[in-house]
Amino acid sequence: MLGYEFMGKAHSNAFHKIRYITWPPPLEPVLVGIAGRNEEAVSDAAQRYGWEYATTDWRDLVADDRIGLFDNGGPNALHAEPTIAAAEAGKHVVCEKPLGRDADESLEIWRQVAATGVKHMCAFNYRFVPAVRLARELLEAGELGEIRHFRARYLQDWGDDPSLDTWRFSAADAGSGAIGDLMTHVVDLAHFLMGDIASVSGFAHTFIPGREVDDAAEAAVTFANGAVGTLEATRFAHGRRNALQWEINGTKGALAFDMERLNELRVFRADGDRARGFKTVLVSEADHPFWEYWWPPGHIIGWGDTFVHELHHFLAAIAGEHAVRPYGADFEDGYRASEVCDAIVRSGRSGRRETVAYRSL
Amino acid sequence: MLGYEFMGKAHSNAFHKIRYITWPPPLEPVLVGIAGRNEEAVSDAAQRYGWEYATTDWRDLVADDRIGLFDNGGPNALHAEPTIAAAEAGKHVVCEKPLGRDADESLEIWRQVAATGVKHMCAFNYRFVPAVRLARELLEAGELGEIRHFRARYLQDWGDDPSLDTWRFSAADAGSGAIGDLMTHVVDLAHFLMGDIASVSGFAHTFIPGREVDDAAEAAVTFANGAVGTLEATRFAHGRRNALQWEINGTKGALAFDMERLNELRVFRADGDRARGFKTVLVSEADHPFWEYWWPPGHIIGWGDTFVHELHHFLAAIAGEHAVRPYGADFEDGYRASEVCDAIVRSGRSGRRETVAYRSL
Amino acid sequence: MLGYEFMGKAHSNAFHKIRYITWPPPLEPVLVGIAGRNEEAVSDAAQRYGWEYATTDWRDLVADDRIGLFDNGGPNALHAEPTIAAAEAGKHVVCEKPLGRDADESLEIWRQVAATGVKHMCAFNYRFVPAVRLARELLEAGELGEIRHFRARYLQDWGDDPSLDTWRFSAADAGSGAIGDLMTHVVDLAHFLMGDIASVSGFAHTFIPGREVDDAAEAAVTFANGAVGTLEATRFAHGRRNALQWEINGTKGALAFDMERLNELRVFRADGDRARGFKTVLVSEADHPFWEYWWPPGHIIGWGDTFVHELHHFLAAIAGEHAVRPYGADFEDGYRASEVCDAIVRSGRSGRRETVAYRSL
Amino acid sequence: MLGYEFMGKAHSNAFHKIRYITWPPPLEPVLVGIAGRNEEAVSDAAQRYGWEYATTDWRDLVADDRIGLFDNGGPNALHAEPTIAAAEAGKHVVCEKPLGRDADESLEIWRQVAATGVKHMCAFNYRFVPAVRLARELLEAGELGEIRHFRARYLQDWGDDPSLDTWRFSAADAGSGAIGDLMTHVVDLAHFLMGDIASVSGFAHTFIPGREVDDAAEAAVTFANGAVGTLEATRFAHGRRNALQWEINGTKGALAFDMERLNELRVFRADGDRARGFKTVLVSEADHPFWEYWWPPGHIIGWGDTFVHELHHFLAAIAGEHAVRPYGADFEDGYRASEVCDAIVRSGRSGRRETVAYRSL
Repeated sequence: MLGYEFMGKAHSNAFHKIRYITWPPPLEPVLVGIAGRNEEAVSDAAQRYGWEYATTDWRDLVADDRIGLFDNGGPNALHAEPTIAAAEAGKHVVCEKPLGRDADESLEIWRQVAATGVKHMCAFNYRFVPAVRLARELLEAGELGEIRHFRARYLQDWGDDPSLDTWRFSAADAGSGAIGDLMTHVVDLAHFLMGDIASVSGFAHTFIPGREVDDAAEAAVTFANGAVGTLEATRFAHGRRNALQWEINGTKGALAFDMERLNELRVFRADGDRARGFKTVLVSEADHPFWEYWWPPGHIIGWGDTFVHELHHFLAAIAGEHAVRPYGADFEDGYRASEVCDAIVRSGRSGRRETVAYRSL
Repeated sequence: MLGYEFMGKAHSNAFHKIRYITWPPPLEPVLVGIAGRNEEAVSDAAQRYGWEYATTDWRDLVADDRIGLFDNGGPNALHAEPTIAAAEAGKHVVCEKPLGRDADESLEIWRQVAATGVKHMCAFNYRFVPAVRLARELLEAGELGEIRHFRARYLQDWGDDPSLDTWRFSAADAGSGAIGDLMTHVVDLAHFLMGDIASVSGFAHTFIPGREVDDAAEAAVTFANGAVGTLEATRFAHGRRNALQWEINGTKGALAFDMERLNELRVFRADGDRARGFKTVLVSEADHPFWEYWWPPGHIIGWGDTFVHELHHFLAAIAGEHAVRPYGADFEDGYRASEVCDAIVRSGRSGRRETVAYRSL
Repeated sequence: MLGYEFMGKAHSNAFHKIRYITWPPPLEPVLVGIAGRNEEAVSDAAQRYGWEYATTDWRDLVADDRIGLFDNGGPNALHAEPTIAAAEAGKHVVCEKPLGRDADESLEIWRQVAATGVKHMCAFNYRFVPAVRLARELLEAGELGEIRHFRARYLQDWGDDPSLDTWRFSAADAGSGAIGDLMTHVVDLAHFLMGDIASVSGFAHTFIPGREVDDAAEAAVTFANGAVGTLEATRFAHGRRNALQWEINGTKGALAFDMERLNELRVFRADGDRARGFKTVLVSEADHPFWEYWWPPGHIIGWGDTFVHELHHFLAAIAGEHAVRPYGADFEDGYRASEVCDAIVRSGRSGRRETVAYRSL
Repeated sequence: MLGYEFMGKAHSNAFHKIRYITWPPPLEPVLVGIAGRNEEAVSDAAQRYGWEYATTDWRDLVADDRIGLFDNGGPNALHAEPTIAAAEAGKHVVCEKPLGRDADESLEIWRQVAATGVKHMCAFNYRFVPAVRLARELLEAGELGEIRHFRARYLQDWGDDPSLDTWRFSAADAGSGAIGDLMTHVVDLAHFLMGDIASVSGFAHTFIPGREVDDAAEAAVTFANGAVGTLEATRFAHGRRNALQWEINGTKGALAFDMERLNELRVFRADGDRARGFKTVLVSEADHPFWEYWWPPGHIIGWGDTFVHELHHFLAAIAGEHAVRPYGADFEDGYRASEVCDAIVRSGRSGRRETVAYRSL
């Protein structure tokens, strides 16, 4: 693994839990090596999370023949080179989002990794929220009919402080701000639930003078399936800590979700029932996605547990049980999210509606 | 009054209740004449709602010297001529929204009515929801700090049926669809709470082939105060019956509202309290807007009661107690809402971000 | 009408609105006389609410041959004598709850009024909340199966102040505190939705030293239909302004309600749907109770509007369209609520579970 | 550990996570042996959860000198003997609730274990929900003033099926039904947040003919601190999966909680703020209980994570960092919960209010 902070903790926790929560696991993860720039911190992380060794050079991991899976949870600027190198060394690769800092870089990562033949996954973990997967299954089953609307927003509130300093505000390290950090999640879920975004009209916006990256982004969008809606991502929404909210309206029903209540899916059915209204579904029944692994109904899971599902999915893909797609996001999905994000930025600069053109290899 | 259906019922009810709910009323309304095209229907309405006489020619009302206030709740195509004629006959005028079918018509109504010197109000009744007025007062007091975001949507679900037929789907009668019917409310509240919208990137959209007017509209917007956000209006949001929802995020707090729970305002204060979070404020305290007229705390009011506040406000304006502005919308406000709506339509056609230019008389 | 304050305002408003909201009304109410102890206040009320005359002696109303309906909204100590006198004068009578200050007084009112042959209704207005009536209809249709539980509470917060002084704290005027004011509503709804309460184990409680009446009451109860549950009423629940909350669980579903969101009914169906959960039903559809009179779906009504339904129901009963029962509460229902309330008080004093014995005439 | 099913999984997961989530852990748990009656199942559990060995005889664990902590997650009938034996062998003991099958058995366990001098904890894990601990801290700080009310209920819905068969329905194995399973949690939280329960009026109830244990229990209660309220526990509340709900009203504020949204605490402050109402606090801030171990704000935890906090607390107690009390429940607390539960059963049988008498060693 590359990276030992937020994502390092989340992924390490998942690898431990996969061993006994998803029983029997498709593959038994062994935590070999972890890399990071700060020698003391990465060493502490190795001890804390049970990695066999720590290194300040990710190339050590690439060179280690015992390692079959390379998990890249480093900052955005460190996505391309290590991920490609690991793939070229024959390791399967999972890379945190955004895949690259823009669509060109994402395309290049996808292209070079795909050429190696290894399995690849872009870590859009919110596909692995039980409520999100249930939504996907209801949509696949046609229970919403023809889709009219998708409106989504990822609202956080920690960015509204000029004195803050983190790699996330550096154009070189992060590539973008709320766009790459939050809008990618919105766009990937849009893609996962709705299919391709066709066009965007909007812009990225920076509130704090001198900040190198965007603080927020807003867009009106059209989908290839004929639906229309709005997308938003911001680090300036006081009152909202981790509110990835979306709603879908179709001719036969509607779905709504809020990550701050990630165990719940709100479901409306236009079935003519006299008692009509949104159901608050606690997604924790034996026949709900991923729930075979967990607790009795009503005993909810946490945000960290989405990574258990995600990395379990990738291990099962490596084990040949299924493909990464369509329930996981592979690097093509990672690239496609970048295209939409770039289009929003482009629209803001050009003042024009931008059609999203997805490239193939 | 012109019009006897939905708005005719709502306004008649308000005139009756003003007499004893807002006690003492600024002026005692006497219900003189009501006009409508269908002779039997308007006659029934007169009897039901207690109007002294009914007529199928609104000119009879304009010619009636006993009438001092002309209330236009007719279809959009009947806003301009009767309203202007009534004003020119020296009657104060209240006109349902949208003021005109487009900005040019709205400007013309405003211009001609303003020239007469009568009082005029555009019936944006949602300004008179206690929770909305409370929001305005909190904003005026600076309790939200600098404003970062406004996101709003007016979601209804009755339009998704190709067999429906109403004047609301006629381009000639209505001018537009969700834009004039719903987006005007969104835009007026944006204006009421945030100030001027500076630019819009978006579009109107029609789902049903052959329908003359738009079914939905989507926009990413910027405000003169530096905030950014999204606006939406639709008649195709299954599951949402009358959901005018908005949220404002500022540097010191946030506010959120949903018309389906119109007695509640959600209030967040970034005050460092360890127990932080949105409050669900039941806007029914003695020191809340309009509540002096009503019941003990917690005994909520209904949608229809917003018209009591609205028309009471206009009667008080006629009585000289205050101006129509800033808490009521006058015809300039009605016109300005039309400019933003037109800009969204224009943006959809041009594929460009449209700066909103507000004309003066 | 006797009484011009809270209930006087609520009932006067209803009589006005019945004339045009419930169209055509079963009978056309004419507001003749209003009585109250304070001459100036009752005179103001007559002027405000449009009563033809005011009097400080309710006997004037009883003696007035023009009056066919006597509406008693006075304090509890003034329920028995005027109501009985009016009935004996041949007037139909509606009396605010609690019918009497205890079961014996309630029984006596019922007995004497029943002997006259007039129509009588005890003003349990919460039966006329659309969501409550819808609940009753779902229960009648067997949609909840066998009933297991009923838990209800009426929570208000205004009583927790030793300096407060009102007739509501006087044993002579009110008879009881939260019991007669709030628990009666709880008990009547229990009766309306569940049928008879069989036994109670609990107590009334007074927090403020020296206060003559109870501040709160708590009970564990059994129902004749086999269900069990809890009841509570209090004026000491800070944070709750008018929260009459109840929930029913049956073998086939569940219902939940909160008066602070009186337009909503929460409905659960144990139907095996994979997307299971409580629906939030906005009770405002054309096929919902009372909604034929009102607005398009989603345009909610207020607390005051429940009196429109209630008094309309009584006028229709007087007009012979239906009986007061089962949807309205007659004086027998008023008496039965008193029996349960008394049993709670008795249980508190005896320290024993009290079986509720309902007397007949 | 004794027991490998529901609690076996929950506790094993917690011991694994303590190693890296609560960093550095107070003691490093080593998973030595696990006991259970079914040889194959316990062997599978040992493999799955990483226990070194499995046995069908819990005495093997008691005899194992490597084991310093005995965790009893077996059925209720297996609480007393193994727990006492382990303590007498010098092992610290944690035992699932209810401590014993009735107060006498609980007292005996407490007495005999206390005599050994080992540390003991009764596994009331809901004390370790961050929102519950935050509530306790707010109460300790006096932020609610004098307490007026506590109303609580633990609602589940799985029991309403006559064909179900489990040790939980056996009087010999479980001792009681909803009482020992659910009401103990309610009672312990009442004790944790409010202090001692003084008296109960209520009953246990069995719906299913022939079932040996209670299906539900209802009580009206008084507290030593002067508050009054209701308690309920049921396995027959269709629509509620794991709804441990409670609300506290005090003179200065109120708190409300629902386990199905365990990351949220609702907080009301009677502070005279014009914008008054319950706050929905997402208990996930850096200064919230237990949150130092977890994720950024808004990234919620799951039900299973409460055991991480609970067992971490006990390890720290063993390490001498603090006592088990007051934040953890020791065996005296386990015993006291049994006394209240017994009193409810007694009250149902006697038809009398039962004063709760707590015995000392």
